[in-house]
Amino acid sequence: MDEFELIKRYFARPEISQIQGQYTDGLIGIGDDCALFDIPADMQLAQSLDTLVEGVHFPKECDPFALGYRALAVNLSDLAAMGAEPHSFTLGLTLPRVSELWLKEFSEGLAQLAQQVKAPLIGGDTTRGPLTLSLQVQGLVPKGKALLRSGASPGDLICVTGTLGDAAGALSSVLQGDTPKTCGDDHLKYLLNRYWYPSPRLFAGQWLRQMGATAALDISDGLLGDLRHILKASHVGAEIAPELIPRSSSLMQQYDQKTALKLALTGGDDYELCFTIPRALAQKLPSTLADGCHITCIGQINDEPGIIRDSQGNLLTEKAYTHF
Amino acid sequence: MDEFELIKRYFARPEISQIQGQYTDGLIGIGDDCALFDIPADMQLAQSLDTLVEGVHFPKECDPFALGYRALAVNLSDLAAMGAEPHSFTLGLTLPRVSELWLKEFSEGLAQLAQQVKAPLIGGDTTRGPLTLSLQVQGLVPKGKALLRSGASPGDLICVTGTLGDAAGALSSVLQGDTPKTCGDDHLKYLLNRYWYPSPRLFAGQWLRQMGATAALDISDGLLGDLRHILKASHVGAEIAPELIPRSSSLMQQYDQKTALKLALTGGDDYELCFTIPRALAQKLPSTLADGCHITCIGQINDEPGIIRDSQGNLLTEKAYTHF
Repeated sequence: MDEFELIKRYFARPEISQIQGQYTDGLIGIGDDCALFDIPADMQLAQSLDTLVEGVHFPKECDPFALGYRALAVNLSDLAAMGAEPHSFTLGLTLPRVSELWLKEFSEGLAQLAQQVKAPLIGGDTTRGPLTLSLQVQGLVPKGKALLRSGASPGDLICVTGTLGDAAGALSSVLQGDTPKTCGDDHLKYLLNRYWYPSPRLFAGQWLRQMGATAALDISDGLLGDLRHILKASHVGAEIAPELIPRSSSLMQQYDQKTALKLALTGGDDYELCFTIPRALAQKLPSTLADGCHITCIGQINDEPGIIRDSQGNLLTEKAYTHF
Repeated sequence: MDEFELIKRYFARPEISQIQGQYTDGLIGIGDDCALFDIPADMQLAQSLDTLVEGVHFPKECDPFALGYRALAVNLSDLAAMGAEPHSFTLGLTLPRVSELWLKEFSEGLAQLAQQVKAPLIGGDTTRGPLTLSLQVQGLVPKGKALLRSGASPGDLICVTGTLGDAAGALSSVLQGDTPKTCGDDHLKYLLNRYWYPSPRLFAGQWLRQMGATAALDISDGLLGDLRHILKASHVGAEIAPELIPRSSSLMQQYDQKTALKLALTGGDDYELCFTIPRALAQKLPSTLADGCHITCIGQINDEPGIIRDSQGNLLTEKAYTHF
C-alpha cells in the first residue's frame, strides 16, 4: 500500500476528517497542498503542538486505540487551558511499518475523541521511521479573552480541577504494559484509565474564561513544576496547602499517604487545570461544574516571585519531570 | 540543560520568534499553553505540515544549518502552491541528545529563511528520541481565492517554474554526505544547492493566483507523479512534451540527455510549482517573473482522466517516489 492509499484509508475517512464543527463550514481539509479555513472576525486562533515518541512518551507495543485517544487528549488539554474551543487538528505520523490493524485502531482512538469534541483532522504527513506522533490542535477563543499564564496577582486563589497524581500512580503499570482492559484490580484500572484516557478540561476552561479566572495552564509535568510557570509569567509566588490537594480514593488505596501526596504534587500526565481567580470571585466558584468536573482551592498567590511554600512557610522545591 | 532552557536559548530568540510579519500584530507566540493570533476578516488560513526523519528524508550527520533551512523551505513550498502568503510556523523537534552547536546551526538555518519570508516561529515541542522534525507553516490567502488542485480544465496550458531534476541529480552526492560547502565541482555544487536550499516559489504562487491560474501544486515527488494529483482532483488528463521540460545546464553537464530527462520527469525535491492556466491567458504569461523565476509551458490538459501522454500519444507512466 502506498502512502497516499494509506492516508486515504485511515485518515481521510469521513468519521475523522469530515466531522462538522461549529466553525468548520467551507473548510478544505486533507487532499490539497494545504488545509484552508476561515475564522470568525471576533475570534482568535489558539494553537498547540505536542510530539510523542515511542519509548519516551509511551511504551512500545502499547494499545494503539488508547495511544490515538491519549495523543489527541493531551493536545486538546492545551486548548482547555486557554479557554479555547476546539476547531480542528493535524497529524504528523512516523511509522516503522504499515500495520493495517494498528492504523485502524489508532485512527479509531483519534476519531472517538475528535467526534466528541467536534474537531476534524484537516491535514498531516505520514512518513516511515521510528514511531513518533506530532499532533497540532487549533481552537477558537474570543479576541483578547484567552486565559494566559501571566495574569495572576497576589491575593488570587489557586485552584485545580479533578484529582492529581492518578496518572503518575499508574505509570509503573503502564511501563509494564498493563492497560485498563487487561487489569483485574479496580483501583489500578481507575488509575490506568486516568493515564490512557485523560479528560481535556475544555468545558472547565471555557467556563473559567467567562467567569474571570486570571491565569491557567494544564498540569502535564506535575503541579509544582507547572504552577511555577504561572508564577514566573505573572511575577508572583504561591502558598499552597498540600493537604488540600485533591486525591482520588483509588490513588489513596494503591499508595500510602506520603507517596500519594508526592504523586499529587509532582506527578505529571493528569492534564487537569491549575488556575487562579480573584478572591472576590470565590463565592461564585462551585465545587462541581455542570459537566461533573470538581474544583478545589489549594492555596493563594503572594508577592514572593517564583517561590512555592506550604502553609507553615516551608519551601516546596520538588522538581517537575523534564525531558532533558 | 533542561528542555525549557534549551527552547528558550535556541528557539525563543528574537531573531526567530519575534519576526514581524504583515499580519502578526498582537500575536502571542512561544511561552504559554498555546500560540494565539488573529487573521484579517477577508483572509483564510492555509496550513501545511511536513515530517522529516533522519535516515529517511535526510542523511545522518548532515549540515544542521542546511537541514533547518530546507525543512522550512519544503514546508513553505506548500503555501506557495496555494498562492498564500506566509504567516508563521511551529516546530516539533525530536532530538537524540542536546548538542549546542547542532541546535545553534539548525536554528540559524531556520531563522535565515524565516526572516526572509517574515514568518516567526510561534510554538512547538522539543522531545528526546530519534532525530525527527515536524514543521507546520501557516499562511494567509484572500477568502475563496486559494489555488487548488481541482480547477484544471481541458485546453488549459500546463506550466512549471524553474528547472526540474536538479535536486534528484544531487541525491547520490547528498547521500554520500557532500554539501555545497565541501563540493569542488561547480555543476555538482549547483545541484547540491538546489537540493539543500530550495526556493519556495511564494512570489510565483501569489502572482499565479492573481493572474487566474486554475490549478497548482508543488513538485516534491516528481513531475509525473505530482501532475497526476492535479489530473485526479480535476478529472482531466494531460499531454506533455518531455523535450520542453526545463533542465539546468548543470544537470545537462552532469548527466547524459536521457538520464537528465528522466530526472526531470520523475525526480523529486525540486519544490518548483506545476500549474495550469486557461489558454486565453497565455499571452499574459511572461517567461520570467519579477523575482527572476522562469516559467515554461510544457503541455496541455485534455479530457482523458488521469492519463499523461507525450506529444506522440505514448503513455508516460513512471511512478513518483512514495514512502511506502
